[in-house]
Amino acid sequence: MALSVEKASSGREYKVKDMSQADFGRLEIELAEVEMPGLMSCRAEFGPSQPLKEVRITSSLHMNIQTAVFIETLTALGATVRCCSCNIFSTQDHAAAVIARDDAAVFAWKGETLQEYWWCIERALDWGSEGGPDLIVDDGGDATLLIHEGVKAEEEYEKTGKLPDPSSTDNVEFQLVLGIIKDGIKVDPKKYHEMKERLVGVSEQTTSGVRRLYQMQVNGTLLFPAINVNDSVTKKKFDNLYGCRHSLLDGLMRATDVMIAGKVSVVCGYGDVGKGCAAALKQAGARVIVTEIDPICALQALMEGIPVLTLEDVVKEADIFVTTTGNKDIIMVHHMKQMKNNAIVCNIGHFDNEIDMHGLETYPGVKRITIKPQTDRWVFPETGTGIIVLAEGWLINLVCASGHPSFVMSCSFTNQVIAQLELWKERATGKYEKKVYVLPKHLDEKVAALHLGKLGAKLTKLSPEQAAYISVPVEGPYKPPNYRY
Amino acid sequence: MALSVEKASSGREYKVKDMSQADFGRLEIELAEVEMPGLMSCRAEFGPSQPLKEVRITSSLHMNIQTAVFIETLTALGATVRCCSCNIFSTQDHAAAVIARDDAAVFAWKGETLQEYWWCIERALDWGSEGGPDLIVDDGGDATLLIHEGVKAEEEYEKTGKLPDPSSTDNVEFQLVLGIIKDGIKVDPKKYHEMKERLVGVSEQTTSGVRRLYQMQVNGTLLFPAINVNDSVTKKKFDNLYGCRHSLLDGLMRATDVMIAGKVSVVCGYGDVGKGCAAALKQAGARVIVTEIDPICALQALMEGIPVLTLEDVVKEADIFVTTTGNKDIIMVHHMKQMKNNAIVCNIGHFDNEIDMHGLETYPGVKRITIKPQTDRWVFPETGTGIIVLAEGWLINLVCASGHPSFVMSCSFTNQVIAQLELWKERATGKYEKKVYVLPKHLDEKVAALHLGKLGAKLTKLSPEQAAYISVPVEGPYKPPNYRY
Amino acid sequence: MALSVEKASSGREYKVKDMSQADFGRLEIELAEVEMPGLMSCRAEFGPSQPLKEVRITSSLHMNIQTAVFIETLTALGATVRCCSCNIFSTQDHAAAVIARDDAAVFAWKGETLQEYWWCIERALDWGSEGGPDLIVDDGGDATLLIHEGVKAEEEYEKTGKLPDPSSTDNVEFQLVLGIIKDGIKVDPKKYHEMKERLVGVSEQTTSGVRRLYQMQVNGTLLFPAINVNDSVTKKKFDNLYGCRHSLLDGLMRATDVMIAGKVSVVCGYGDVGKGCAAALKQAGARVIVTEIDPICALQALMEGIPVLTLEDVVKEADIFVTTTGNKDIIMVHHMKQMKNNAIVCNIGHFDNEIDMHGLETYPGVKRITIKPQTDRWVFPETGTGIIVLAEGWLINLVCASGHPSFVMSCSFTNQVIAQLELWKERATGKYEKKVYVLPKHLDEKVAALHLGKLGAKLTKLSPEQAAYISVPVEGPYKPPNYRY
Amino acid sequence: MALSVEKASSGREYKVKDMSQADFGRLEIELAEVEMPGLMSCRAEFGPSQPLKEVRITSSLHMNIQTAVFIETLTALGATVRCCSCNIFSTQDHAAAVIARDDAAVFAWKGETLQEYWWCIERALDWGSEGGPDLIVDDGGDATLLIHEGVKAEEEYEKTGKLPDPSSTDNVEFQLVLGIIKDGIKVDPKKYHEMKERLVGVSEQTTSGVRRLYQMQVNGTLLFPAINVNDSVTKKKFDNLYGCRHSLLDGLMRATDVMIAGKVSVVCGYGDVGKGCAAALKQAGARVIVTEIDPICALQALMEGIPVLTLEDVVKEADIFVTTTGNKDIIMVHHMKQMKNNAIVCNIGHFDNEIDMHGLETYPGVKRITIKPQTDRWVFPETGTGIIVLAEGWLINLVCASGHPSFVMSCSFTNQVIAQLELWKERATGKYEKKVYVLPKHLDEKVAALHLGKLGAKLTKLSPEQAAYISVPVEGPYKPPNYRY
Repeated sequence: MALSVEKASSGREYKVKDMSQADFGRLEIELAEVEMPGLMSCRAEFGPSQPLKEVRITSSLHMNIQTAVFIETLTALGATVRCCSCNIFSTQDHAAAVIARDDAAVFAWKGETLQEYWWCIERALDWGSEGGPDLIVDDGGDATLLIHEGVKAEEEYEKTGKLPDPSSTDNVEFQLVLGIIKDGIKVDPKKYHEMKERLVGVSEQTTSGVRRLYQMQVNGTLLFPAINVNDSVTKKKFDNLYGCRHSLLDGLMRATDVMIAGKVSVVCGYGDVGKGCAAALKQAGARVIVTEIDPICALQALMEGIPVLTLEDVVKEADIFVTTTGNKDIIMVHHMKQMKNNAIVCNIGHFDNEIDMHGLETYPGVKRITIKPQTDRWVFPETGTGIIVLAEGWLINLVCASGHPSFVMSCSFTNQVIAQLELWKERATGKYEKKVYVLPKHLDEKVAALHLGKLGAKLTKLSPEQAAYISVPVEGPYKPPNYRY
Repeated sequence: MALSVEKASSGREYKVKDMSQADFGRLEIELAEVEMPGLMSCRAEFGPSQPLKEVRITSSLHMNIQTAVFIETLTALGATVRCCSCNIFSTQDHAAAVIARDDAAVFAWKGETLQEYWWCIERALDWGSEGGPDLIVDDGGDATLLIHEGVKAEEEYEKTGKLPDPSSTDNVEFQLVLGIIKDGIKVDPKKYHEMKERLVGVSEQTTSGVRRLYQMQVNGTLLFPAINVNDSVTKKKFDNLYGCRHSLLDGLMRATDVMIAGKVSVVCGYGDVGKGCAAALKQAGARVIVTEIDPICALQALMEGIPVLTLEDVVKEADIFVTTTGNKDIIMVHHMKQMKNNAIVCNIGHFDNEIDMHGLETYPGVKRITIKPQTDRWVFPETGTGIIVLAEGWLINLVCASGHPSFVMSCSFTNQVIAQLELWKERATGKYEKKVYVLPKHLDEKVAALHLGKLGAKLTKLSPEQAAYISVPVEGPYKPPNYRY
Repeated sequence: MALSVEKASSGREYKVKDMSQADFGRLEIELAEVEMPGLMSCRAEFGPSQPLKEVRITSSLHMNIQTAVFIETLTALGATVRCCSCNIFSTQDHAAAVIARDDAAVFAWKGETLQEYWWCIERALDWGSEGGPDLIVDDGGDATLLIHEGVKAEEEYEKTGKLPDPSSTDNVEFQLVLGIIKDGIKVDPKKYHEMKERLVGVSEQTTSGVRRLYQMQVNGTLLFPAINVNDSVTKKKFDNLYGCRHSLLDGLMRATDVMIAGKVSVVCGYGDVGKGCAAALKQAGARVIVTEIDPICALQALMEGIPVLTLEDVVKEADIFVTTTGNKDIIMVHHMKQMKNNAIVCNIGHFDNEIDMHGLETYPGVKRITIKPQTDRWVFPETGTGIIVLAEGWLINLVCASGHPSFVMSCSFTNQVIAQLELWKERATGKYEKKVYVLPKHLDEKVAALHLGKLGAKLTKLSPEQAAYISVPVEGPYKPPNYRY
Repeated sequence: MALSVEKASSGREYKVKDMSQADFGRLEIELAEVEMPGLMSCRAEFGPSQPLKEVRITSSLHMNIQTAVFIETLTALGATVRCCSCNIFSTQDHAAAVIARDDAAVFAWKGETLQEYWWCIERALDWGSEGGPDLIVDDGGDATLLIHEGVKAEEEYEKTGKLPDPSSTDNVEFQLVLGIIKDGIKVDPKKYHEMKERLVGVSEQTTSGVRRLYQMQVNGTLLFPAINVNDSVTKKKFDNLYGCRHSLLDGLMRATDVMIAGKVSVVCGYGDVGKGCAAALKQAGARVIVTEIDPICALQALMEGIPVLTLEDVVKEADIFVTTTGNKDIIMVHHMKQMKNNAIVCNIGHFDNEIDMHGLETYPGVKRITIKPQTDRWVFPETGTGIIVLAEGWLINLVCASGHPSFVMSCSFTNQVIAQLELWKERATGKYEKKVYVLPKHLDEKVAALHLGKLGAKLTKLSPEQAAYISVPVEGPYKPPNYRY
């Protein structure tokens, strides 16, 4: 798409694929609201007091219907929002359209190039004069990364006059990041510093983004407080586990229509995401094999009747491969070459580097046959047989299906709302330093409690005597911080 | 669509939605072939001898990719085929396009009106001069019904000169059938008699169609031999059970993106289809309740931990309702009125009369909001709350998703190939009277055997001593005819 | 034990292990009655009219608590009963004691020798003057076999004067049978003929016994009518499937305390029993592999995510082996030699010849270490490693645990009651010839219906219109005879 | 039993039920060793260096076969051990016998009175002169409690001359504890002080014991360092979860033979133990309902398809009740009165106060019928109906069955070995203060790793690049301390 900003009738900026899909988006938002009791409860509880009144929030999340309900919750609490996506393929265009029309500045569409992707992030951070956003909600940490790299480059420029050099890296995507920053410095050599100054904090949603934050905390380079929403129990043990249990199958079915029952499936990694994926495949009648580096997770798989082997042991016999590790270089092109004809290879981790897409694309003589968008058959010249790679290596559930369902995302996003409220409320108290924090247990329990009624659940109440016996308050929190659930 | 027959470059007639989708259809056929070892094995085994050479076959099946592979198997064995669909919504337009372009006369598109539907059936039976087809493959029995009703009307006309009177019934669909026959008699008062004369037999695929056949057999009105493919173990206990276990979830996800986990789901009927649906919902984390009339099936549900209640007991509390009974009037509008807001109502049985669509459509003041095609929210005026009806009451899996996956359909369609071969081979021997037959056990076992290699299975061989001990041949069949699996 | 008949205070004959356990038996019977609604309902429905008044019934069933409730149901309907067991290890001595004290002549104890076993069967058939029993309830067919062999030998003796010769066979058990018959002929050369004359029929409970009956029917040697209770749906698809799903684990746990989770388990045979065993092991966290001869059953296993391989493929790697085939020579000593140290080998089929116990016992240098009764470790001289054989190769669930639980046995035994009533009621009508019959569908449905209330189930009622639509009576039966459930 | 200490031929003291069972115990130990690779590996790794040489260890654990293998591991590492049980019913007499004969002083038998129970603990702490043990391994914390209460009473006595007064409490068991201490002070008013002085630390095994320790830590009354083994992942997430998943069913089956399938079961508490129990019941075909106080755990249950209700909602309809909370007063006598006839009530938490046994025993007119030891039917006078209480309210798995299987206990006990080694090694370094510690992650991972080979698992190795990418060492630990698995 031509990279020019458009303006809605409201005067808000946007860039989306098709504004005419806004009505469809609205209908789906209305359905989703019924499934997102946590967010609706936040609107009811906090809406009247407008705690985020005129707060600038940049949202870097998968721009789909569930995120739309989240954005409208932020605006219902008073915030002004600018949105980009956090993945080139995960935007639902009707969701982007309706939010752009009704609520916020949106820069996102399904099928961005990497160049477009980073342009969108830049737009979402671009609040005009007076610096950037007050708060960021991030998923994967790309918006956070851009600011950190920007500040670093500006400091270098201030000290040495040297502009960032895209050719200094052979990581294609990082070349784009450096290019954007370089162009920015030429216009305003303090842009990212001003952004950092204004910024109160970020709340981060996913494992990969959180890892980056902890690395910066360890290195002492973190520029603002961060709340790690990923490690709220009501996020990580629900969204990652039950969300993926649902949406992996959804993605496989929509992309390939393949019969899961009877197939040999390999799940690389048995963390929360891997546990969800393995459970889904097993329950659908597949034989599942897990690969793991961690002996504890491996023993968990074994206790569930799932063998633990290496990829090399099973690469020739399996029908479906799913990477869930959050690590890189899990399935390499030399593995893919050995697979059965029409073996399916997909990833459900945040980044696409779990699968060696570069190795595949540059394999001599390989032939790519696009069955339909994001479903490609790659044929190797030696054998004439092919493998099917889904979502070009990106997250299958968000790219080939609709991502996680609303109910579980309501848990995750309610944590995000609470985190944003907390960061803003404590912006001047010094409660949060330039570190990574998790939400306290009682808020985690509150998020869960908001989701029970929809499913017809009734909690038992502790008597004071019982509470005393197990040394907890009657109203909770009921567990020590390190409790594993 | 305008109801005019078009002609392909091959000279074959057709009527499909979009011929330009043929290439996409071809790519999906190629994927499906890898998953359909039974059909591919039929091509290898029977193709060289062309046992169906110049045989006219009318196919009245869901016109999707799996059916396309089946049609190309028939043509690979020499047959000439004319196709319609057996459901107004179940055609995949790319499948219809590729078959129309490359293989057979096709009259089918997604979203036919009932009028168009019966026009398509008529076209598929219209082989020009020299009567109709030699063989029919039917699913639900509509093609078979048209011939039977046609013959009946022609006899009446011959005796009394009375034409069929569409206004004699208030069943809207049957009015259309009578209208078609009436128009036909006017042109050729012997059309269906000629068809009947030529016709060697039908092989029928599904429970509802088979029930019609047995009723005709009991009444003595069956006009030609029929093979009941539905009751092959490798059809009914696989397609109906494992197929639905797969495709119910697929349909629910594509149509609604709803989180299955935690939801209260009601499955009406616990036959093979109901068992598959209940298993799928349970494994996805739903709480499942079954309704049943049959105490044995009810006791099976209980042994699986599934409560058995009546619809009235649970209508106000459940989130998802699925009808699987093959009976009519299962969920009535008075039930729907009592349901929770946004309760999901769908059917996976062959006909749409399991759900009282007529009652719903004509309910005073009801409002229909189409979220997307085949996903409608119906709002009742009294409460302002709505329910979500999928697929307009037709089979959710075929309408809202892609139907059953290829592998399990390979089992069903391999039975169909064998049935067609058998009917044709014995056309002159008198082996088959005007009755309903099931395939013999050894052919059923053969169909299964053809599907084992793809899944890496290895069978154990009986020793002669063991075979004698249990009184079976070493090579099978291994079970008595009434064995229940 | 010394093989002499004792007399209870009632004057009834008996031979049990310990009459002092009768009170314990009574307490367990009282618990079981609450779990056996079908039998209790038979008492309520038929007790007042005493339809079995003074009918002589010989019961050859596993003499445990569930059978005790069945025996007391027969006596509540008026019958006089004599009991033996149908397995040398399956008697529960407290059950035998209480029935002997309160109800019937009992000849059974846990741990009979084969000689004692056949002596007990003879006693149970010995009704003094006026021939033998009027009816037999059999499990496995040993009582039936004894009469057939007896009649055959008497005919031979009458014709040729030749007595049966035990040394004519090298089957040790059959030598005993011939010996008993030989001794009998010396006393009364018409004993079995008189038995046959009086006998109205047998109802047989298990797959192995039914196979024998059908073989006799085919050979024309069946001497009296037989009702095949095993093939009632409410027996075979419940007792065999859900009973074994429960009791296999129970047996494994009591015998070995072994952790099931994580273990590699091989289930030989995937019929109803095998399906129950595989499901149980899988759910307990084992990895399960099935061996099969039948491609249809094999494909069913695959659809459940269970690989199908041969015993040779897995013999060295599996931890637990279970035979369920009803065939012979499934696990041979050459297999056992290759197994891992402390691999567990057990059988849950009716006869002990699924495991090559003879080969094991006679293996040169093998050493048997009895951990506890019916749990033996067999150490091979070559390797010094051992395997653990349970129940000496007999049915693990009945020998190492308490057999199937009461509720599912209530289904089986209610079928037996109905079968006995039917045989007796029709004794003079000629309805039953010397053939094998199954109970009609409506009685099968009745058995199921009697068990629903206990589990809180509520059936839906068909409307007359619905019943007509699917061509069944409103009150059932709801399915055609060949329906597979 | 007469409370007198006996002496083995070795000269060691003991008090067990039946020394003749020692050989049987040895056979079962040999089987268990094959299933306990972690312990056997500890023997191989640490045995040669005798790190516990002449260390006095008091073991207060369930005295069964798995504990026996653990005791023999401690002695293989050089330790001298004195053992009691930590529950009146959980001793396996053959395990006690063999350890008493071959390894250690044992004071334990199945069916102790509370008086006998505390006498045994006293014996296990009685090392004669030179104070008590160097180390304690505790399960539930009773040995630890006795020392703490003893020290407190001695201090009071020293200050005020007042002896402890058993009549000061109406807790019957605590009266016994005070009586023992009182008697002790009369003999030696410094006995527990001397014990405390010598004692290096305790490693505690279970949730209830750990809670006591943390309470003492908070109160500042903890007298020595404690390692919380319960919260090792390889203990809590395996023993508590997978152990109970196995042994709950085992206990129910051995105690009642009841059919689990079809029954309505209530699991009170959905922590690790409750999760294991609920999974087991569900997989066995029961309908499961959970009661919970914690909204997060409640939401987990819902995601698994398990409804969350209060006990009051279901008390009249359920068939099986299991308490797993670690809290008190969960099922009260007023609940029990409302239950269905023959409802089963049992507890799998550490203490028996989850079920109101006192209320039941003192209910006016209630009648107790002992079916067999630890299986009692209690009949209420108002209704004449009864409930079945298992294990007299103590842990059903350890009392009615054999406790957790060896493999999972190997994980738990390997943590115990490591904790004991750590406490001893660091006894003089000051590393451990009077606080509660968990083992470091790398040791937890090591425990898991020791158990993989037995189950045929193969781990994947991180490349250095991958390890750097996710910021972990190549050899682990792989997860942050708060990772939840």
